[in-house]
Amino acid sequence: MTCVSEAHVGLIRVLTTDDEETLGAHGRVLEAAFPWMRTISRCIPDQPQGIFDDNTEQLAVPKIIRLAEEMADGLDALAITCAADPGLVEVRKVVSIPVVGAGSSGAAVAAAQGNRVAVLGLEGAVPRPIKSILGRRFLNFYSVPGMRTACDLLSGQGKQAVVDVARQALKDGADVILFGCCAMSSMGLAPLLRLECGVPVVDPVVAAGAMLWEAIRSWRA
Amino acid sequence: MTCVSEAHVGLIRVLTTDDEETLGAHGRVLEAAFPWMRTISRCIPDQPQGIFDDNTEQLAVPKIIRLAEEMADGLDALAITCAADPGLVEVRKVVSIPVVGAGSSGAAVAAAQGNRVAVLGLEGAVPRPIKSILGRRFLNFYSVPGMRTACDLLSGQGKQAVVDVARQALKDGADVILFGCCAMSSMGLAPLLRLECGVPVVDPVVAAGAMLWEAIRSWRA
Repeated sequence: MTCVSEAHVGLIRVLTTDDEETLGAHGRVLEAAFPWMRTISRCIPDQPQGIFDDNTEQLAVPKIIRLAEEMADGLDALAITCAADPGLVEVRKVVSIPVVGAGSSGAAVAAAQGNRVAVLGLEGAVPRPIKSILGRRFLNFYSVPGMRTACDLLSGQGKQAVVDVARQALKDGADVILFGCCAMSSMGLAPLLRLECGVPVVDPVVAAGAMLWEAIRSWRA
Repeated sequence: MTCVSEAHVGLIRVLTTDDEETLGAHGRVLEAAFPWMRTISRCIPDQPQGIFDDNTEQLAVPKIIRLAEEMADGLDALAITCAADPGLVEVRKVVSIPVVGAGSSGAAVAAAQGNRVAVLGLEGAVPRPIKSILGRRFLNFYSVPGMRTACDLLSGQGKQAVVDVARQALKDGADVILFGCCAMSSMGLAPLLRLECGVPVVDPVVAAGAMLWEAIRSWRA
């Protein structure tokens, strides 16, 4: 056993909720993966369906910037735990601590783990930062039928549907599976899929944790 | 303080050396960044100048595969600590533990930390896996004048030359600096450059550690 100093990380959730269990879901995933991280989660207001298209993303960005400014003081780093990285560039301009997004972090970790990355996500398009980082490592986007928003996935019917699309991705030759929606992190799907798949399954929230650790460690050094 | 289980990681060095100090340089960088990692370093034979062009890379690949097969037993993961990721795809086919390369890991971490990544390296071209992952985040490649091989850098004259090219990269608008040569890790240049630069400085060996941690944690989960 080796002991390390704690790091205090703020998580910006883009799904409005007053349910503590839901709000803390990404924080629990992150603290399980990195036991020395202490997380504080807060969510943007008035978007109970989260971000699921360009319009809801544009609506969210100014709220994310405001929340980041409120949270930054006293924290080691911030993470925007949404696969679209909404507001990432803007938030980096207004706070003086490291900031990562779950989308680019997830894609980055996936790109380092293999060559044919299947992205699993909600109905619609693959999030831009993921496509941009994966480049030619992008195999295909597999949308989960009938799941348009994070709330649809969290309703509980999503789990088997995600397993089914993951199986299809493997048939198509995927050597890495990446969640292109952070609701899959909240569902705790990664351990389940790893048992099914036999290839690395990248959870974007955990990936953001790996990127945060690199950044926090650098800033402290 | 939080305590975590140790992970045992094998490092494949592509620079032939019988000097323990040189051989262990990347392991020391990694253990400083991730105190719960225990590293074992071994190097390929008969390449005292390391890898610095296509020819020396092709020569190295079969040696890297052989070394990986010898080392894998009893380890949690392997890292090939060269920015060209030589043999990465091949090694993944022959061992059953996670394998990462410093090049793709460094590029991946850099891509998650900013949008205009300057790559600092030896004279010659930017390593392929780095260019491929950075995509449009690639700002420019800055070769250090007079430095053709890792040995030139390690000779001690390289430090000021690296600082000079980093300054040029910042003038050109870089918001992240990535070492495109693992000899810069051995030189312990990252902390020095961070003081100079005020932007994230990504050390590919440390980045490989972050990717290893994600992979080891996943495989254990």
